[in-house]
This record gives sequence, C-alpha cells and structure tokens, in this order.
Amino acid sequence: MEARNARGTRDIPPAMVHRRTEVVDRIRGVFTRYGFEPLETPAIERLDTLEGKYGEEGNKLLFRILERGEGGREGKADLGLRYDLTVPLARYVAQTPSLPLPFKRYQIQPVWRADRPAKGRFREFFQCDVDTVGSTSPLADAEVIAVWSDSLRALGFSDYTIHVNHRGLLGALVAAAGCAEQESSVLVAIDKLDKVGMEGVEKELVDRGISADSIAVLLDGLGRAADIDAIEAIGGDAARTAAAGLREVLHLADGLGAQGVVFDGSLARGMSYYTGPVFEARITGGGVGSVGGGGRYDKLIGLYGGRDLPATGSSLGLERLVTVMEERGMLTTPSTSTRALVTIFSADTMDASVRLAARLRAEGLPVETWLGAPGELGKQLKYAASRAFPFALVLGPDELAQGVVAVRDLNAKAQTLVPVDELAARLAR
Amino acid sequence: MEARNARGTRDIPPAMVHRRTEVVDRIRGVFTRYGFEPLETPAIERLDTLEGKYGEEGNKLLFRILERGEGGREGKADLGLRYDLTVPLARYVAQTPSLPLPFKRYQIQPVWRADRPAKGRFREFFQCDVDTVGSTSPLADAEVIAVWSDSLRALGFSDYTIHVNHRGLLGALVAAAGCAEQESSVLVAIDKLDKVGMEGVEKELVDRGISADSIAVLLDGLGRAADIDAIEAIGGDAARTAAAGLREVLHLADGLGAQGVVFDGSLARGMSYYTGPVFEARITGGGVGSVGGGGRYDKLIGLYGGRDLPATGSSLGLERLVTVMEERGMLTTPSTSTRALVTIFSADTMDASVRLAARLRAEGLPVETWLGAPGELGKQLKYAASRAFPFALVLGPDELAQGVVAVRDLNAKAQTLVPVDELAARLAR
Repeated sequence: MEARNARGTRDIPPAMVHRRTEVVDRIRGVFTRYGFEPLETPAIERLDTLEGKYGEEGNKLLFRILERGEGGREGKADLGLRYDLTVPLARYVAQTPSLPLPFKRYQIQPVWRADRPAKGRFREFFQCDVDTVGSTSPLADAEVIAVWSDSLRALGFSDYTIHVNHRGLLGALVAAAGCAEQESSVLVAIDKLDKVGMEGVEKELVDRGISADSIAVLLDGLGRAADIDAIEAIGGDAARTAAAGLREVLHLADGLGAQGVVFDGSLARGMSYYTGPVFEARITGGGVGSVGGGGRYDKLIGLYGGRDLPATGSSLGLERLVTVMEERGMLTTPSTSTRALVTIFSADTMDASVRLAARLRAEGLPVETWLGAPGELGKQLKYAASRAFPFALVLGPDELAQGVVAVRDLNAKAQTLVPVDELAARLAR
Repeated sequence: MEARNARGTRDIPPAMVHRRTEVVDRIRGVFTRYGFEPLETPAIERLDTLEGKYGEEGNKLLFRILERGEGGREGKADLGLRYDLTVPLARYVAQTPSLPLPFKRYQIQPVWRADRPAKGRFREFFQCDVDTVGSTSPLADAEVIAVWSDSLRALGFSDYTIHVNHRGLLGALVAAAGCAEQESSVLVAIDKLDKVGMEGVEKELVDRGISADSIAVLLDGLGRAADIDAIEAIGGDAARTAAAGLREVLHLADGLGAQGVVFDGSLARGMSYYTGPVFEARITGGGVGSVGGGGRYDKLIGLYGGRDLPATGSSLGLERLVTVMEERGMLTTPSTSTRALVTIFSADTMDASVRLAARLRAEGLPVETWLGAPGELGKQLKYAASRAFPFALVLGPDELAQGVVAVRDLNAKAQTLVPVDELAARLAR
C-alpha cells in the first residue's frame, strides 16, 4: 500500500502549525475585540443545503459523500463537505429561531473544494469569517471593514487596501448603460477587471453581446471607478440611495479607525447573493490576488425556509495570508514549543532524570526526555540541537551530588550549573 | 428548502465553543509540556489508506467520498473521511522518511464515523491524541500514561483510573489456556468484560466454541486480573518478558508522577494493531465508559510500504470528557468573551460611541457596539443583560461634556462614572 495524501491535500507539520496558530490567534484576537463569538459547524452538510448556492462552477467543486459506508463504494451521495462558512451560518440561523439578534459570530474552520490542485491551491483550506446577522445598520458593515484593517495590521501588514463598493451603484451604472436585463452577465465581465484589465473587460462585454453604446457608458464609469461622485452622477437617481448608504459605511469605518479603505466602483465580487456593500482585501504586491472578500447579503438566510434576515460579513483566506507572510519573513514563530531536552546520563541516573522532567513540567516548562538508550551524551546533544531546542540538561552523578543541573545553551554553546529550584524560571521563555 | 443538520451532526454554539476551548487548551498545555508537537492532517484520505485498518465494523462506518463532484451524484468513491488520528499519523510517517526520530506529535482534530446517532454519540467528534514514533523505550509508554494523568488532573478530575495491561500477558494467558489459535476470538470476548461481567464473558467463550478446560484457565486469570504476579505465574515463561516490560513502564510512570494507574490483566482494547502495553482511561462513575484508549503498535506503520517503526500513543475523547464535566458543573467558562456593550445614546452621539469602542478595542478590551437604532437605552441595556455582558457603557451629552463614561455593572445593577482613560483597565477581566 502506498503512503500518499489524497489529491490536492497536504499535511501540516509542527513548525507550520506553530506559524499558522500564531496567525489564527492574532486574527481571533481582533474578532473577539469586536464582540464576535465563535461558532463551529460540522464539516458535513446535507447536499441540498449546499447545492445551488455557489453558481454552476461551485456546484461542480462540491465534494459529495455517501450517506453510509455500508453500501460499498457505489451509492447515492446525499451529503457534501462544507464549501464555505457563509452557507452553514445561514442554515444554522434559519434552523435556530430562538437565536438572540443581532448574532455576531466568527468562524475559523476548513472548507473543501474539489478544485484542480495548483501551487498554493489546496482542496482543504481555512477561512476566517466574521458575520453579523439581524442588523441593517451601516455600522455592521463598517465593523466588517474595520475588522479586516485591524486584523491585517495585527499580522504586521501596512501595504493593504480594502476595496469597497455597493451592488446598488453597480446596478445603477448597468441600468444607465441600458443593459439592466443582462446585469449578471455584465457583472461577471466587470469582476474580471483586476485580472484582464480594461481592454479585456471591453472584449468580454463585446463577446457577451453588449451594445457599443452600453459599453461606452460602462467603460466611462469603470474609468472613474475611484470617484464615488462621478459614479453616482452616471447612475442617476437609482444610485443616490446606494451612494448615501455607502458614504455612511465609509464614515463609520473611518470612525472605527479602519485604514487603507478605498472606494472602488468597479468591484463586483463573484457571489450572486450580495445585495448591498461589497468588500475585497488586497495586499499590495502580495502576488496572491485578494486575501479576503465579503459583503451584505440580506436575502440568503430566507432561502432556508424561515424569515428573511439581513446579514453582512467577510472572509479572510488563511493560506494566502500565511503564504505572503512566509515569503516576506514576517513569521518568526519558533519551530518548537519545547524548551529543553532532559538527557539521560546513564541507566543509573535515569530515574533522577525522569523525576527532573516531571518536576519541570509541573512547574510549567515544556521539556522532552531522551527516549533512546541512556548514555552517549554527544548523540543526545546533537539530537537536541537538530530539534532546535534552546537547552539541553545534564544530570550526572556530580550534578546529582551537588543538587544542580548542567544547562547547555545550545545556541551560545555555553554551559552553566543551575540549582534545581531555579531551573524552570531560568529556562522559561 | 429545509434548514437541517446532516444526520448525526450538530452545530457548536458560542457558549459551548468557549467551554470546549477551555478543555482543549488545558489538554494541549499538558501535551506541550511533555514535548509533543502539533501535527494536522487533512480530513480527506485516500480510501485505501483507511480500509482494512479498523476491522469489519470500522470498514462499514467509513464515510466514502466521490473524488470529483463533476460526475453528479453517482460515481466511484475513492476517498474517505478520517476515521481516527492514528492511521493518518502512520501514513504521514511512512510518507516522510526524512522525519527526525523520535517523532512526538499531538493532534487534536475531528474524526468521522457513520455510526447510528444516539444520545451523546455524534458522527463528527474530536480526538486528542499523543503518539511517539521511533522509540522502543518503556519511557515512551510511561509518558503516554503520565500525559493522561496530568491531563485529567488539569481538567479537575481526581476520580479516574488508568488501566494498563500488556498484549504479551494476554497472549500468554490464552496460550496457557490452550487456545492460542483462537486468540483474536478470545480477546474479543474478554474485551467485553467491563460491559457484560464474568458470566457474560464465560457465555461468550462457550458460544465461540472454547473448551471448558480452556475457559477454566481463562476465568481463573481474569478472576485475579489485578495481580500481575498471578497472571505471570499462569502465563509461565511466555509471560515473563511482557511482565518485566510492563513493570518497567509502571515504575517509570510512577517516577513521572502519574496517579490512578492500575494493572488490569483483563484489559484487551479492541484495535488489532496493538503489540505491547495497552491503556484505557476511565472516570469512576462517569457513566460514559472509557474516556481514552491507547497502546503500543510496532507493526502498523510498516503496513504503508516503508520501514517498520515502533510507536506508542493514546487518544482522549473530547466529547465524553466535556459531557462528564458539564454534568458535574466542572466548567465555569463564561458564555461570552465580550466585556461590555457600548450603547448609542442618540444619533448625535453615535460617532462618539463608535470612537469609544475603537479606543477600547485598541486597548485590548472586547466590546460590542449597539447595532440597532440609536436611543431607547432601556432596550439596549436589556439586550446587554440577555447576552450576559458584565457591563454596559453609556456616553450621553453629559458624560461627553465631562470626559467620562457611565458604566453600568449589569450584575450589581450599579452605575459609576469612569474617566475614559481608566476605562479599559477597569473593565478588563
């Protein structure tokens, strides 16, 4: 039998778990300070909960599961793996009518997509989501933006931008261009602006059968995408409410201290369920595209049979953030939590070393005890250095007689004798 | 569309996540102090990695996944969801020949079993595993035992027992009874002792066609299961090495400070891959059966095509521990991390409240800002109390003029005026 990962998945070895944990802890800290509370949902959802929420492409990428293993390898797939964290939230809220509102939840869990594996693209990856359900307040949208700004700053980024638009502004622009009936098709083309540029969008609009007159209006708008007044002027009456709402969101985000926020009248965001402000986070020169997306979706929860509930939220992609941070050397997390190897000087002193390890652990110090044959100290010290432990502890007959431990600093390559009573405090980080 | 969980799965709402996180953090702290390092493996494994490792029953309970969603609902299932954390570890180690040994890893992740749902039995549940790969030292086995003892004490348990046996002793007992050829069948019967009692085991052995003479020897051994000398005497020469090895493990576990460890010559543990010491953790009167299992498995990793590597480890079941702790009121984790609601006195003071919230967050204090319409303070205070926030903050025109904030202690139902500069420190936990 071959030992191999499932296609497109990977193991996360200890040093990488330490780095990812540091990133997640910082993000979670920000989420918590904004009053978001943790929710966890199961990896497995009923297939009808998932299907039809992610567009044609998403439907193809759902991992489908057989309800019971008993039927053998062939059978009916009634279950699926979680594809994002928004749909499970909507399902949970719809299922829990007693939930106090607003419900502000964060969720940091893996999602699965049967995508073609590529460099940096895995079939299992983590999303870090915040969502507020049950509030139409622009402050809820502003908080989602501010959470991103604080999170990216907490990770050490300063060269990020948070692009903000409003679906109503885009709709008004499309209507002003006289192609309201093809709105979703036009938005798909505009959504590619970042990747294919203005000429690419023009070509795509032509291919989609949009008239030259319409394209002229659309490109005029996209050409002034940074200017909310210009977009509002093109969009006319239909754009006014959206623009006013978006200005309030931007004002409140500023009050919350959000930095790097820019109006971007060309931002569309793929998901069809957005109904108001939409957001996208980018690292300048990050080389990973966007690191987060989000927006207001006031009609999604109602799909699950209960009441319509307003909601807004956003998602940060953990893998992309970690990739950029590793490339830039922003992560200096130690590769191990272990502070020292407790060596075994000889079979005679083994019990003493075991008791020393137990004492240090009881005092809160993470230590590993040598698990090979006792003796051959050089081999033990070499192992400790290879594991990047800061210290190795030697407890031979001389040290035992004196009530001390020989502490080898494996970086400084120096040795000192330390009384057992002082050891844990001296070796703590 | 109906909003409903997949069968046998459940959502974990915020208050429960907080309690579970506290339990996991305490367990992880112990794992870390013993020098175990975190590994994460994907939820999805190749089906041939999983099949044939868990016995006939386990094979039935594997969740099978279609490799791509594209084929629609019918298709070939080549993938499966992780069923435990031991097999993925064995696969990872076999796949990573460069891994420095010994490899001491912990892993706290969900596993999935398509079991019949029942009270307290879910199809997605968490295991907390430690394993040491690449060491035959009895100290590695002793550490696994001591980790349990420390973990259960860290959680606040004092009424636990850690049952320890050695597969070699059981094998010698079975051989002495003259039924070595039916060993695995006999072990299945003995494994049920805890559930069906001595008479039940006797009946099961009869049903399995074991002779009356053999059964007499077996029951004699099981009747003296607490006495390692007696079991060794019955097992004869074949039992001597196993008994000596187990005595060394027990001696070292004692040196590590492990408490509640008892020799139990009747302990079999289900998994067929165990080759040496086996362990089981129980809470006295916990009503949940065992809370952990483990043992030495020196032949499993070799199944994945590479070298045979010795390994020993154990698993604690998170859900069972949390269940007992909740029943006993051992978990007093607050249901929310949020310290205060920042109310919005009126539309005119909204910006001031938003800036106050931003300042408190920057100072590290988790606060929620009122997301409903400004004004109607009574409604806002009622909401804050319903969420169990300790405080509500009021910033009206009077407070603004004085540079203070009115702090309502929602438990004491008292109000004090606090200067803005002192607020975060005063409200911190």
